[in-house]
Amino acid sequence: MTTNVTAYAAPAAKAPLERTTVPRRAVGEHDVLIEIKYAGICHSDIHQARDGWGEGIFPMVPGHEIAGIVTETGSAVTKHAVGDRVGVGCFVDSCRECQYCRQGLQQYCERGMTATYNGRDKAGDPTYGGYSSHIVVDEDYTLRIPEGISLDVAAPLLCAGITLYSPLAHWKAGPGKKVAVVGLGGLGHMGVKIAHAMGAEVTVLSQSLRKQEDGRRLGADHYYATSDPATFEELAGSFDLIVSTVSAPLDFDAYLSLLKTDGALVNVGAPEDQVKLNLFSLIGGRRTLAGSAIGGIPETQEMLDFCAEHGLGAEIELIRADQINEAYERVVDSDVRYRFVIDAATL
Amino acid sequence: MTTNVTAYAAPAAKAPLERTTVPRRAVGEHDVLIEIKYAGICHSDIHQARDGWGEGIFPMVPGHEIAGIVTETGSAVTKHAVGDRVGVGCFVDSCRECQYCRQGLQQYCERGMTATYNGRDKAGDPTYGGYSSHIVVDEDYTLRIPEGISLDVAAPLLCAGITLYSPLAHWKAGPGKKVAVVGLGGLGHMGVKIAHAMGAEVTVLSQSLRKQEDGRRLGADHYYATSDPATFEELAGSFDLIVSTVSAPLDFDAYLSLLKTDGALVNVGAPEDQVKLNLFSLIGGRRTLAGSAIGGIPETQEMLDFCAEHGLGAEIELIRADQINEAYERVVDSDVRYRFVIDAATL
Repeated sequence: MTTNVTAYAAPAAKAPLERTTVPRRAVGEHDVLIEIKYAGICHSDIHQARDGWGEGIFPMVPGHEIAGIVTETGSAVTKHAVGDRVGVGCFVDSCRECQYCRQGLQQYCERGMTATYNGRDKAGDPTYGGYSSHIVVDEDYTLRIPEGISLDVAAPLLCAGITLYSPLAHWKAGPGKKVAVVGLGGLGHMGVKIAHAMGAEVTVLSQSLRKQEDGRRLGADHYYATSDPATFEELAGSFDLIVSTVSAPLDFDAYLSLLKTDGALVNVGAPEDQVKLNLFSLIGGRRTLAGSAIGGIPETQEMLDFCAEHGLGAEIELIRADQINEAYERVVDSDVRYRFVIDAATL
Repeated sequence: MTTNVTAYAAPAAKAPLERTTVPRRAVGEHDVLIEIKYAGICHSDIHQARDGWGEGIFPMVPGHEIAGIVTETGSAVTKHAVGDRVGVGCFVDSCRECQYCRQGLQQYCERGMTATYNGRDKAGDPTYGGYSSHIVVDEDYTLRIPEGISLDVAAPLLCAGITLYSPLAHWKAGPGKKVAVVGLGGLGHMGVKIAHAMGAEVTVLSQSLRKQEDGRRLGADHYYATSDPATFEELAGSFDLIVSTVSAPLDFDAYLSLLKTDGALVNVGAPEDQVKLNLFSLIGGRRTLAGSAIGGIPETQEMLDFCAEHGLGAEIELIRADQINEAYERVVDSDVRYRFVIDAATL
């Protein structure tokens, strides 16, 4: 038996989001029912609600940065009890059997993970995301939110946080390493915080120096404007790791020249179209161009524990549900420092 | 005091190579004089002799796959004695002080290595390569050729061998790993031999099945034609490592789709122009696009020792010096299995 719960949904592609109800499945033996407290607004929410990638499932309830409280548990649930502080990120299921699922890399599931919204579950039913009062999720796809982090600033960690934590950990940001973060937005600001907490020397590469003060406050040791060609001369051969969070097409040969030998430029943002580069930018210096997508369940838990230990949360602007459409416009205009979070009590 | 030695040189860009003499410096205290026995013909010899990259220094004596015998040693030489079997590869000096030289990664020297030919030494004099009777080289930039390898099949190891060994070792080809080699030419055939000797499961990806029998004889477990679209369907998500030896622009999105999660596509060949790819080909599966250039002195020695241990040499066609121009045409036409080697006795 499904239950209808309150939600904000885009009724059709490009239509403004509005208050509605959507069905949630009955709590199965391995499920938990979560009362959502906060949901972050990710740029990809806007993209999908406006059907930027096509094949969107409407009505669509976006939201994959979810923090809440467990209010009911299925009979076989062992990981959570009623009252637990929990999070849900970008996916709510995967095949559980392939080589990647078995390694805890569910984000790279060979059969494709089940997206938290705008996806279809194993029964073929559409999934609805976090702009909602409640969600039912298999306990294996939930995360514990440690006591050290407030739920509002924890919500964006479930996508923005893990998207940066995963490549920083995988490419070993830490003491003695020089790390650059390209773009200081929702993703980039978490990159600066996390890389700094890992002990790396952190540089922000931003189009302008407009957010320089913020960048330094968040943990950046250096801040450069990429609109200034002198930046590329001065920083040539400097970095062990560059994480690009932007979706604009970069001059990749120029950015690759900023890497040391064996350095990596890892993209977590990307333009939809093909980009260009000269392979000699990689050959000279055994450099790497790579990509990274969110993180698996074990690594997402590790990230939350790391953030709690280091007192890290997102920088947020809390909004009411009736401000979602306005917030979308502001995200598109890059007018947010650094993440909008919906107070689910206002749904 | 310099000594003039016999050599084959291109007197000017695009002119045929002809017999001449070039100066070699006096044997300094750290130098060895090498009587060259064999010199391999690398595709880049042709490119440079025809001034494909511009700024070529003429007359030009190509050749950076050199095998010979030490006939004189400087007063401070400790590494070699007269009679030693030695090799010289793509560079004969570097700054020796930068972070990369200190790590034995001289090929990535911050101040630029001194190329074996078509370069300038620290005195500003042009360097002349291996199509010659003798060469004078600092002992620190020479390699020992173990007894187990004949000098003729050893010569191509100094460029083709190390160019493939280095990425295969760096990206950990070995038992349990699936490795593909793109292109079965001078570079590719060494990739197949070395990857097989390292214990990897080796696949050749070649335009056609023309050389399939050779590929299997050299150590390939599988052989696929990339002109057949079914190849890309069948092999999707298969490889831990793909090494591309070709200089034609590949469909990088298609080749990247052949990698497992965390797999790497490493280019040792590259087109001169920019290539295109979609970054989502990297993001989905945390894949790497990388490049690799030859190897440093310690790794080149390691490669020679590895090849001796495993009985590996290049597959060669030995030629006389007066066949060099004809051999160049055949290399351009891909009509060589798999490396021309000049018998220096015929100079």
